[in-house]
Parts: sequence; structure tokens; C-alpha cells
Amino acid sequence: METKYIYRFGNGIAEGNQNQKKLLGGKGANLAEMSSIGLPVPPGFTITTEACNYMVQHNLNWPEGLQQQVEDGIDHLEEAMSADFGDPENPLLLSVRSGAAVSMPGMMDTILNLGLNDEVVEGLARKTNNKRFAYDSYRRFIDMFGDVAMGVPHEAFEQVLDKLKEEQGVSLDTELNANDLQELVNRYKAVYRKETGYMFPEDPREQLKFAINAVFKSWNSNRAVKYRKISGITGLKGTGVNVQAMVYGNMGDNCATGVCFTRNPANGENELYGEFLVNAQGEDVVAGIRTPLDIQELKDLMPKTYDELDKHTDKLERHYQNMQDIEFTVQEGELFILQTRNGKRTGPAAVKIATDMVDEGLISKEGAIKNLVEPGHIDQMLHPQLANDDISPNDILGKGLPASPGAAVGKVVFDSEEAERANNDGDPVILVRIETSPEDVGGMSSAEGILTSRGGMTSHAAVVARGWGKPCVAGCGDIVIDYKNQSFTNGEVTVKAGDWISLDGTTGKVIKGKKELVDSDLSGSYSQFMEWVDDLQHMGVRTNADTPEDAAKAREYGAKGIGLTRTEHMFFKNGRVTAMRRMIVAEDEQKRREALEELLPYQREDFAGIFEAMEGLPVTIRLLDPPLHEFLPQEDEEIKTVADELDIPVEKLERKIDQLEEFNPMLGHRGCRLGITYPEITEMQTRAIIEAAIMLQKDGKTVLPEIMVPLVGSVEEFKNQRAVIEKAARAVFDEKGVEVDYKVGTMIEIPRAALLADQIAEHADFFSFGTNDLTQMAYGFSRDDATKFLPSYIEQGIIEKDPFQSLDVEGVGQLVQIGTERGRQTKPDLKVGICGEHGGDPDSIAFCYGSDLDYVSCSPFRVPIARLAVVQSQLRDEENESEEEVLETVSEID
Amino acid sequence: METKYIYRFGNGIAEGNQNQKKLLGGKGANLAEMSSIGLPVPPGFTITTEACNYMVQHNLNWPEGLQQQVEDGIDHLEEAMSADFGDPENPLLLSVRSGAAVSMPGMMDTILNLGLNDEVVEGLARKTNNKRFAYDSYRRFIDMFGDVAMGVPHEAFEQVLDKLKEEQGVSLDTELNANDLQELVNRYKAVYRKETGYMFPEDPREQLKFAINAVFKSWNSNRAVKYRKISGITGLKGTGVNVQAMVYGNMGDNCATGVCFTRNPANGENELYGEFLVNAQGEDVVAGIRTPLDIQELKDLMPKTYDELDKHTDKLERHYQNMQDIEFTVQEGELFILQTRNGKRTGPAAVKIATDMVDEGLISKEGAIKNLVEPGHIDQMLHPQLANDDISPNDILGKGLPASPGAAVGKVVFDSEEAERANNDGDPVILVRIETSPEDVGGMSSAEGILTSRGGMTSHAAVVARGWGKPCVAGCGDIVIDYKNQSFTNGEVTVKAGDWISLDGTTGKVIKGKKELVDSDLSGSYSQFMEWVDDLQHMGVRTNADTPEDAAKAREYGAKGIGLTRTEHMFFKNGRVTAMRRMIVAEDEQKRREALEELLPYQREDFAGIFEAMEGLPVTIRLLDPPLHEFLPQEDEEIKTVADELDIPVEKLERKIDQLEEFNPMLGHRGCRLGITYPEITEMQTRAIIEAAIMLQKDGKTVLPEIMVPLVGSVEEFKNQRAVIEKAARAVFDEKGVEVDYKVGTMIEIPRAALLADQIAEHADFFSFGTNDLTQMAYGFSRDDATKFLPSYIEQGIIEKDPFQSLDVEGVGQLVQIGTERGRQTKPDLKVGICGEHGGDPDSIAFCYGSDLDYVSCSPFRVPIARLAVVQSQLRDEENESEEEVLETVSEID
Repeated sequence: METKYIYRFGNGIAEGNQNQKKLLGGKGANLAEMSSIGLPVPPGFTITTEACNYMVQHNLNWPEGLQQQVEDGIDHLEEAMSADFGDPENPLLLSVRSGAAVSMPGMMDTILNLGLNDEVVEGLARKTNNKRFAYDSYRRFIDMFGDVAMGVPHEAFEQVLDKLKEEQGVSLDTELNANDLQELVNRYKAVYRKETGYMFPEDPREQLKFAINAVFKSWNSNRAVKYRKISGITGLKGTGVNVQAMVYGNMGDNCATGVCFTRNPANGENELYGEFLVNAQGEDVVAGIRTPLDIQELKDLMPKTYDELDKHTDKLERHYQNMQDIEFTVQEGELFILQTRNGKRTGPAAVKIATDMVDEGLISKEGAIKNLVEPGHIDQMLHPQLANDDISPNDILGKGLPASPGAAVGKVVFDSEEAERANNDGDPVILVRIETSPEDVGGMSSAEGILTSRGGMTSHAAVVARGWGKPCVAGCGDIVIDYKNQSFTNGEVTVKAGDWISLDGTTGKVIKGKKELVDSDLSGSYSQFMEWVDDLQHMGVRTNADTPEDAAKAREYGAKGIGLTRTEHMFFKNGRVTAMRRMIVAEDEQKRREALEELLPYQREDFAGIFEAMEGLPVTIRLLDPPLHEFLPQEDEEIKTVADELDIPVEKLERKIDQLEEFNPMLGHRGCRLGITYPEITEMQTRAIIEAAIMLQKDGKTVLPEIMVPLVGSVEEFKNQRAVIEKAARAVFDEKGVEVDYKVGTMIEIPRAALLADQIAEHADFFSFGTNDLTQMAYGFSRDDATKFLPSYIEQGIIEKDPFQSLDVEGVGQLVQIGTERGRQTKPDLKVGICGEHGGDPDSIAFCYGSDLDYVSCSPFRVPIARLAVVQSQLRDEENESEEEVLETVSEID
Repeated sequence: METKYIYRFGNGIAEGNQNQKKLLGGKGANLAEMSSIGLPVPPGFTITTEACNYMVQHNLNWPEGLQQQVEDGIDHLEEAMSADFGDPENPLLLSVRSGAAVSMPGMMDTILNLGLNDEVVEGLARKTNNKRFAYDSYRRFIDMFGDVAMGVPHEAFEQVLDKLKEEQGVSLDTELNANDLQELVNRYKAVYRKETGYMFPEDPREQLKFAINAVFKSWNSNRAVKYRKISGITGLKGTGVNVQAMVYGNMGDNCATGVCFTRNPANGENELYGEFLVNAQGEDVVAGIRTPLDIQELKDLMPKTYDELDKHTDKLERHYQNMQDIEFTVQEGELFILQTRNGKRTGPAAVKIATDMVDEGLISKEGAIKNLVEPGHIDQMLHPQLANDDISPNDILGKGLPASPGAAVGKVVFDSEEAERANNDGDPVILVRIETSPEDVGGMSSAEGILTSRGGMTSHAAVVARGWGKPCVAGCGDIVIDYKNQSFTNGEVTVKAGDWISLDGTTGKVIKGKKELVDSDLSGSYSQFMEWVDDLQHMGVRTNADTPEDAAKAREYGAKGIGLTRTEHMFFKNGRVTAMRRMIVAEDEQKRREALEELLPYQREDFAGIFEAMEGLPVTIRLLDPPLHEFLPQEDEEIKTVADELDIPVEKLERKIDQLEEFNPMLGHRGCRLGITYPEITEMQTRAIIEAAIMLQKDGKTVLPEIMVPLVGSVEEFKNQRAVIEKAARAVFDEKGVEVDYKVGTMIEIPRAALLADQIAEHADFFSFGTNDLTQMAYGFSRDDATKFLPSYIEQGIIEKDPFQSLDVEGVGQLVQIGTERGRQTKPDLKVGICGEHGGDPDSIAFCYGSDLDYVSCSPFRVPIARLAVVQSQLRDEENESEEEVLETVSEID
């Protein structure tokens, strides 16, 4: 039997289907699919990737039989469109597009309006009663054909166009009239002749043959080959070619073109939503010259068409089990569906659509969770948003990094104390700093939002703000802050302290004035949806929380325990930092112990509050981690004040500061290294934890403390600290006459610890991957300094994503897997989690799920997102296990 | 048959041999061995480890038959010594010592003079005609027996001794006379009675039984169990017990005791060397109260004994194939060899002995290389040494880290410019700094030696000094430096600028005044020995060298190429740093290129010089590595000067310095990250390398440049830099019309790079492990900051060795192996080397050899050491392959 090279679709025929992506390419398979479910797509045929494969191997010679099959395809189109290819009276025009099994955006070529020549263009003008349209189509065709099929540089045509506009004294293409465009066609043909040495082909069949060859040839163009190499796309035979009838919405008043959504993308209501224009092309809807009509008005203008559209869109939604974004054209009363894709939507809409579609029986709960709501949608719902995202460009003062989502409005303040004062007075403020430090946490906590002009997505401001779910725009280089004059400027507008600004932490925009905010409704659809998520979730989500308030918030959001409590943040509060500093400047162990004694009740109280908020759930508390110099002041004046507070000479404090200075603090005297050189710190913290736990247990509450030793690099370090902890706990037990169960585990955040996890697991009750530091060390990137080269790296394509935002699965991920595997070699039931910033990133969560971790831990505001991401990972994992070969997830048709 | 529990030796009997360490313990096996080759060891018997095993499992009950076998052993001793155990007229006294298969120094117990009681002591006094000696032996026996066998604290005896001395008004033990000691024996017995509740056992057989049980019990003492656990000693059954006849050199004038070496340990001459005392105990030789006689005088005093000794020592040397350090005692004309061990010797002696012993046919070349010369011996020979190591304690000003070996004398200077001036005037100087920075290299190079009061073994001063083979004592905390007054003090002595001092970089001593130095002779034995090494060596040794002079020196020392040329050191010379700074402050690429243009001829000249010195051998050149801020000044005054030089405002320079400041420079904008953000730097350096190579090639010389990209963490970084290098090289080739072969490879110094070595190897021609940085990142230790906790870590046993000195095989080593294996998975013939400081450390070299690396690279002065270490690794590897089970290398008998 002769090889079948073309697959027809449209007009009741569908020779292919959506499972034939390898043979027909993604676009061809989907056009066939739409056709097969009875949708009126503009008819056409797809030439297979096998034909492409043959042709690229045979110097573009067509395989036996293809010529005849293409003729059959043209017959099909002529019949379907009741028009004739090349007939000036009733012309059939074609589009020719590439389409491989895997989408390669912008890599390959398209030719539209094919079939036009000097005669046909006149017929088109008569038929559409629009000479300007006809000649505009023709000149575009010559340009595209010349460029794609013959390699004439597009610029050559552009120069001629510019010259004509100059001659006519106009500046816009749209100001050229029909005669101008007719003249342009002639000049374009001259360009074509000059550049190629040939006359422009007037024979539509010759045009088609050239166009098909051009598409096939583009498969092996340098840029396409390079793209496939970079993207790791292998195993494909070639591209398909889709030859399809052109349809026009601008042939008269019985024509129209529009876009619509099957449901409202803003609020999720189940109603056809969209807009259209009568007698217009698709570009006109976008260009905004004419005001489009609401889709509902189509009901009155073209009732039959509206009914058809309603029917078809409903069918599409059912078929793709998702809200669809559809382009359609009505040509002379006949409706064509040009394209459908899953529609973009807001967070609230996504959740409502998901729950509605489940309620309507259109999709299973699993399907809705897997495909209808993205983690970003949930994120949107947890933060207030700007009520109106239509902000005048004049109001935008600058754009920084979208460091912590949500919107905030407030009056500008430039220092933390001022922020606290204003907050006490009930004034909402935005804290604006060049960058923030641990000393700013009071002010940050008092502000509605935070804006910094320096620092990255993981700068202090960004990390703290995300932890609190507080909007933050970080590293906004567009503005320059002047503390002395209490103002900032973008060079045009200067904002003074006390002026209102608005921040959009989701987009990074800094906006002049006080904009309106709205909250999402977390009852109804949201709570229904998250309940379903909860039912399916079988990997844990914990939270990183340093205060009882954060712990309570996270629990409300569904956290099943705490994965990381950073004890050092507690030391910055009020008077505590003075005791901490006294400990640091102490000259001997005795003095250190005295200062620690002062800190003990504070810590105990903090821990008790957190245990209470997380009653019945595990609470992982990390021992002191940062280098001690972080607690000492840096500036002269402050040093003086602090020396007075500590009642020591300024010189002594300065000497201590010098002494503690480090070349690379990240790799310095911190983490368990502190606990080993000063075991009394570990003792005090253990005592505070155990005493707090006993207090609560006496009240009949269940406490599950997990003490976590940071920055362990060798088993000996862990053993040392475990012994100190056990001794201190035993002392408390003996004093109090009661015991509590507790675990002792460690962070795995040093590459060496991952490599030697088998040894460490012998002594540790649990592991928690600190992927922030693990990334810093495994990649050799200082998080604070990488801003100097990471942007350039991402721009040059050396790194795809900031490894501090999304776990570097290829490199750092290996250490996570090695650490987990080796740890479990020693202790098969070892509990392993992750508590870096990555614990709230969906891609990283998918990796953690695949690596068999027991839980992820993230900031309270990311808990619901993580819960969704966890369940999506589970569902996708099940899907992968049940499918043999999946080339790509069907999500878009384009 | 009854189990054999005791093995006799001495007096012509040797039931065991040196291969029975597991059964007899190391000491027992060696005593048997000496006996078996006919040496007169004091006779004795060893109770086996199997007996120990039985007894510790049976509550110290003796196994069937042991009692009788011990009696047989005593018979053997009585016969051999012609004395009787417990007979006051002719007493046999015994020592009882532990001895396991693996040496556990200080962990287990010894009892001497066993067999004494109130009657026997009188007999001993009569026989030796020395009542004081007899009672001193007795009181020591009671103390040891009480302590070891019965757990009486040694302090209890000490208190009694102190009280008696007080009563007698003396301060030294030796001032007590015979009667005092007799009184002391009584008091000791009272202590014994009081502490144990029993009378001191007068029956020698009872004493022996207690003593044997005590040794067996000590096998499972807490400290011994802990020691075995820490040292990873497993699989042993227990300890052996050696019961041996006591012999005395102080029974009269036909007695003597001494120590001797089979060859001169200072210069290696083949002559009996040592000293002895007539009618004395071993302690007397050490105590220095009487002046010992030269061993040659024994020839006259006891000619027969001397001949015997000569014969026996000769036999021992032949038997152990090594120069021996022997203890002997002559008791009433009878010679006993008490102990033999390999003798310590100086570097020159070691080499001479090795070559002599080969020439004399006593040992094979391989044996001599493997066992007779340590890498440290070679190190000693390459540096001048103090002519006399007998330095008065008063002259020692302090002790620091032995950072770079060899000795130096010079006048003290406190700054680098002064050092350069003095050097120009021909004055030898010692540069004394709190710590050094790259700006001090001029002064360091001008000085004879360097002394710093701060910094570790891998501080700037230490690394640079070792690189140059210049003596350095680093981190000498004993002295405080006062730049203002141009002096330093240890609190007692103050040394001013211009005063003479001497440094011993091998021991870390800082010495007052001008001491005499001597050089080793590197012809003769040394060159003979290294020739043999060369013949066997089949793993490469390259050098780290930044100048033609270093390269030439290293080649002279046997380097087979350069493994690391650090280009940045070149930028600090004279005017170059100004051009470098101009490049750094440049505001755009154009200005940067202009400044680089200035640097090009300097670099080209440097490279040409190095290529010439290494003609025909590969030269690996690393592109610019350190962060740019290292090239800018830090102090106000200097900033002003530099701003003037650069002709820019001070504020601008300050701004640039601020801008380049980093939180963790080690993980910051350096290495290939510079080359990626500023490709023009890579281009200039490539051009300099290629132009230099072409210059030399035109002169008919063979150049083998290898361009090394630093700090690569991902394949994309490497690809980027490789492309820049290839383009720049191509441009030079096109200009010059000739080509040279060159390679492009990378450092593997980031953990991620090791993990993804398979990808990187696809594009790299070679790998070189930068284990300094790899250690920093894998361990999370900043080399500069770790001094704050590493000493405490080593003290607490958390880390055994400084991982910057000796490669952390367990952790960092895994990354070296992973990187090598994965790299060779992709490219089986990938050349892999190591160029960190570890390349000159013998233990690390053994690891590299085992990991199948192609070469190690180290500083010029460590090349011969590395060559020896490489060959020793090879030989030991072959040995391991040919032996089935080796518990420990036999090197000492004690």
C-alpha cells in the first residue's frame, strides 16, 4: 500500500487524532482532534513528519505519491470551502505552518494568504468589497513568502515600505490607502526579483510547493537545530506541515471575529465571556482602534452563530476538561473555531472553576487539582491584591523584584523606629530602605510592606517578608534613596517621607499614591478545594515559624508541624539583644553563663508559646546558627550606645567586633561550631526547650520537640552536640522529676554532611536539608554576592533559574538524594525533610516528592501552596507510572 | 591436646615469631623474633591473647592448664637466669607488660621488679651491694603493683613520699638515702593496706597472678575500649602478657647499660654510635647526672662484650633491614639486648644510610625507598638548617606554626618596603608582620624568612613562603608586634627593628640572635637516591609556579611540567597593578580593553619566560581567579595615593571599593565568573598565552600550553569560556599565520562541578582538582576563619588533622573520586591532576595515587618530596596487592 503522507481534517473529516503527535506534530494532531469532535475548524490537511524526514534526507525531493496526495488535499479544501485554489472569482487562500511534536516557539516558519496573485487579488477585492484589505493581504504574502521560502531579508521589504510612506507623507502603515498598497505590491515584487533573481511565482500550486519545502527545510535551520540541542529535544523525525484554508472575518457585515472564554477568567462564573467585532480581522480586536462588543451582543446580532458558538465552546470545555480561551471567525455567516487553549485566569477564578467543574461532574477531584489550579493561584488568594491592575504608566515609580507577593499601601518611612512609632499611632506605612538587616525586623513587622533598592530574591528583606507573608519589592534599582533628605526619587518623581505609595509584591511594581486593595474570600470554593487537597495529601507540609503567631497562622493554613524554628530571631527582640551581647563580650565561661541565664526565661517563654500553638504536632527547633558578630553593632555611634549599655569601654567593644570579624562569615564560626566551642549556649537552649515542654506537658498538652543541630559537617560534631543536649536534658528531667520525649537531629546543609550521611544517621533521629546553605556551598555562590553576576548568568543562559529560588535539581539535588539514600541505608525509617526556602517552591517540592522526602517546610504563607504542589506531585507521579510514553503534557494548542 | 597458652623465648628458645602478632601481641612476637635469630634478650614468656579472651569472658578465671604452663615458664626463666623466683639468696625478678597486636600507647599497664618482698629485697641489696637500689626498686614495685593490680591511686603513694621528703628536709627523690627508702617501703605498705584492706602480698607467685590478671583486665578498661573505638581498632581477641626476667646493669663494675645506633644518625656513617655507663641503670644514662662514655670506649673496658654487641647489632640491622636504635644492659658480664627499633635520623643521614645499605647489598632499592627515607627527610635536605639544634631555652623568643621549613637569620624589619630596601643594600632581613597580604609579596621575596603573629598553616604568609621554599613561622601568638615603635616583645624580651633573629621554620621556633646555618649536600647520596626514585616513578609530579625562576627551580628538582600558574600574582608586580586597577575602575568595556591592552605585554613576557623554562613540558595556566577587590587598596592614605595614580577622584575610587565589597568573597564574583561577565579579560589572557607560545615556537621550541578555567560549577560556564578562548586564539592564529596546539581544561574546585563532571568532561580537555577551595566548600570551612575553631576541634578530637594540610579523604576525597570517575566515564583518557596545597602532602599524594590521578602538582620545594611520596605510594600499593592480611606495618618494637 502507498504510504499515507497527508491527513485531512475539517468539514466532517478527521483522519488523525490528538494521540498522533509524533506523526502529525502537536498542531496537526490537535486540529484533527477538534475536527473529530465535530468542531468547525477551517479545513486543511497535515503533511506528516515522515514526509519531512524523507525530504530532508533526499535533498527536498518529494516521496513517491506525495504530489498526488497534496492534490487530494487541495480537492478536500476546495470542496469544504466551496471555493477554488487559484480561481479569481471564488478564491481559496491557504496558510502553511510548521508544527513538530514538541513546541518550539518562534523557531519555525509560517506563510499566510498563499494563493494570491495579480488576478486573484482583484477577485478577493471584489468579493470582500475591500480593495485595501486585498492588497494588504497580497503585499504581506509576498513579504512572508520571500522571507520564508526564498531567504529574502525582511528588511529589504521594510525599506521599500518606509520609502513609500515617506513619499506619501504618512507615518503609519494604516494610513496607506488601497492604491498605495497596490503600488507597494509592485515594488515588493521588484525587491523579490532583485534579491532572488526570479520573478515572483504567480502559480498558486508552485507557491504551495515552495512553501511546503521551506517549512521542511526550516526543521534543520541552524536556529532550530540549536534550539533542540539546548532544550534536549531528541528522537523526533521532523516537523509536520499544516496546510489550512484561510478564513476572513472582514468580508462584509455577515462576518466577524472574536475571542471568548468558556467561563469568566476574573471571577470564575460559568458564563461565556469575551468580545468580538463585526467585519474585522483578528488584529483589529487587539489593536484597539475599534471598540469590541461584549460577546453577549452576538446573541442579538447573529443569534444562530451565537448558539453554535455556545455549543462548540461547551463541547471544547468538556473535551479538554478545562476552561478554554477560544479564537473564532465568522466568514459570511459561517463560524470557524481557529484555536483553543486553556484560558489564563485569576486565583479566585481558578479555584471557583475547579470546584464548579467538579460539582458539574465535568472532571474528577484529582483532575481538578492536577490541572485546573496552579500553586501561584493559591498564592494570589492569600494576599490582598490591587483592586484594579490597570495602573497608569505615569503612576509607576519603578519596578523591582517581586520578592514577596501581595499588595500594600502606606505612607513612606525611611527608618525602622519611625515605622514602629507610626504603627503604634495606627498609621499604615511602607518601610523604604536601601537594604535591611536583622536590626530592622521591628520596623519591618510594623510596616504594611517593604521596599528596598538593593538585594535579591533571597536578601534579608525578601526572606523575612516572605516568611511573614508581607508584600515586598526588593532591589528596585529604579529608585535612589536619600536617607538624609528623607526621600527617594526615580529621577523624575521624588517621594518624601509621609507620602502615600502602593506596592505590588506580586509584580514588583512601586506605584505613586494610595491604591485600593481587595482581599480574597477564603471560605467557599477555596476551603472546599483545600479540603480535597487535604484528603489526597500523603507527604507532609510543615512550616518555618519563629513565633507563636506565625505558628498559629501556619496551622490555620494547614501546616502539620514546624520544620524550622530559628532561635536567633528571638534574640533581636527588645532587651534580649543586650543580654546576648553581654554573653558575646563575656571574657570567660562563668560570665557567659551568667548572661545566658538572663536569656533562658525569654527562650523558654518563646518555646512554650510555639509548643502551645503547635500542640500535638512536631516542632523542630534549630540551635543558634549565625556568627556572633551579627549581634554586634557596626556603626560608631551605635557602638558607643551599646558599650554604655553593656557598661564596658568603647575600645573593648571595638576590639571584640574586630576579633569576631570574618573573611567569609558564611563559612566561619557559626552553627554547631558555636555550640562546640561554647557548649553552654547549647545547654541553655536545650534547657529552655525541655523546661518549656515540661511546663506544657504538666498542663496535659502533647509536645513533640525536635532539637536540630545546625551546620554539621562530620559525625563527630553531631555526637559532641548530641551529648551536650542529652546531658542538659537529663539535668532538667532530674530537677523536675518528669521526662518528655524529644528527638535530636541535624540539618544537612554542608556538602560533606550529605556525603557522609550514613555515618551521621547512626546518631541522628532525623535530617532536614537546609538547601539555602547547601546551594551556597555546593554551587560556590554566596547568596548575598551572587547578585553581582547571577543576572548576567541568567541573561546569557548559563543558568536557567536562580538556584536560590528553585532547587538546582541537577547539582544540589544530587546531594539531597545522596544524603537521603545514605541516611536511610543506615536507618531505613529516618525522617527526612527540607526546610530551606525551596520548601515553598512547587518545582522544588516535586523534586522532594520524587526523592522520597517525608515533608517539606516553608513559611506560613506558602503552606497552602506547598500543600497543593505536594498533591500535584503525587498525582503526576501516579500518572507517569501509568503511562508508557508521554511526549508533552497537553496544555496548549497553538 | 592441651591448648598452648604460653610461648617461651630467650636462652636459645623461641617458640613464637614475628608473624604471630595476633596471637602474641606485637611485643611478644618481636621478643620471640629477636630470640629466634639468636639474640640474647632477657628470657621470658608470653601469655597469648587467647588466654586473655578466655579470661575476660570468664570473670578472670584461668583456663584449664594455664596455671601449670606459667609454672613451666617460671622454670624456664630460673634456668636461663640461673636464679630462683622468690629466693632471697639469688633472686629472679620479673617484669609484666601488656602487648596487643596493635600498638595502643599509654593505654595499658606495666609492673616492674615483681618478685620482691621483705626477704628478697635484703638478698638483692647484698647481691648488688647497693641497699639504696634494692629499696628504691621495692618501693617502686609496691607503688606500681598497688596502682595497676589493685587500683590504689598513685597519688596516695605520692603524698606519703612528699611527706617523708619534707621530714628529711630534702626536695629531690634522689636525696633520700637507703634507710629513708626502707622507711618509705613500710609506709607504702601501710597505704596499700589502708586502701585495699589487705596486706601487701609477700608471695611472689601470688604477686605474679595478680599482675597477670591486672594486665588482662586492663584490656577492657574504659580508656582502652574508648581508644580502640576512636582508632577504629576491631577484630582483636585481647592483649598478650609478657613476663620477662629483669636484668640490671648496676650490680657492680662488670655491669653496664647503654644505647647505640647501628649507624651514625646525624650523618649516616656506617659505624656503631652511642653511649653507655658502667654499673648504672638505664635512667642514669638519660638523667645526665653522670657523663656517659662513648660506645667506642666499651672496646677497651669490656672487649668481649663489645664484640658481642657489634655482632648482635649488625645482625639486627640485617634482620630488620634498617638502621637500629638499640638498648642493652650488661649484667655481671652478660650482655642482654633489651629493645631494638628503627632509629630516628636526620635527612642527610637517612639518604646516606639508604644508598649505603643498597650498595652493601643489605636491601633492595625498592625497600630502601619504601622504608628508609621519609618525605620529611627530603624536605629537610632542601632547606638550610640551624647548624646546632641545641638552643638555650633563654634564646627562644616564642614558638609559632612551622609554616614553611628551613632556617633563616636576618635583621628584623616590620614593613615590606624596608625589606626591599635592605635587600638592595645586601642586608639579610627577617620580615615581621602581624599578617601579610598580597601587597607584601615584594618584601616577602626580599626577606630571608617571614614571621607573623597571626594566621594559620594556610595563611597568606604560609602559602606564599612554602611556594618559594622560604622559611616561615606563622601565627606566633607568643609575640606582640608594635608597628608604631618598630618592635616586638614576648613580654620578657623586646626585639627592635635592626636586631638579629633566627627562625626555624621546621619547628616553628623564633630565636634571639644570629645562629649559624648549614646547607645539605644535594650531590652524592641525594642525587643517587632521587635517580632511583625517578626510575620507579610512574605517576607525574608537576609544580605550581608563577615565575620563570620558580619554574626553573622546580624543573631542577624534577618537576615534569607546571600544574598551576596563578596569573594574578603577576599583576602585583611594579607598575602592573596600576594598569590592573585602571581596568577595574573602567566604566565601560572600551576603557577596560584599553587597560587590558597595557597588561598584555607584561603577561606575554611572563608566559614566554615560563614556557622557556618548561620547554617541552606541559604548562597549565589558570585564568584570573581572585575577586577584583583584592587589587584595590584598603586604607585611607593608600586610597588617596592610588586615586592620584589613576587620576580619578578619591570618592570615585571609594565608591568602586564599596561596590566591590563582598559578604563572602570566597563564594563571590571571582574565577570564571569574572571571565563571563568581562570576557575581555579572558580574551587578553588567552592572547598573551598564545602569542607567547607562538614566539617560542618560532624559535624552534616546543610549547604545550594548557589553559585552565577556574571555579567552574556548571558545564555552561565552561562552554562559555571555552568559546571565548577559542575565538581569541583563532584571532591570533589568523594574525600570525601560524598555529600552536593548546588544551583547554578546568579546575574542579566546586562540589557541584565534581558531581556534574560527566557533563563538563564532554567539553574539557583536562581536569585539575583545586582541593583548597574544594575543601572550603565541601566542609563549609573558610580557610581564613577556621583558625577560630579548628584548634578547639583538633583538641576535642572532632577533627584529626587540619583538612587544609592533609586532604579529608573521607569527605572531600569522595568528591575527588566522583569527579574523576564521572569525568572518565565521558572521556576515558581524561587527564586529571591535583593542584591544591595537598599536592605536596604525602598522605594526600597516597590518596591521589589510589584514586588514579595522572599527576600531583605542588610548590617547587615540595617536588622532590612529592616524587618520593608518589613512589612510596606505588610500592605500598604493590605490597598491599601481594599480601593477604597486614595488621600493621612493622616499624617499631617497643
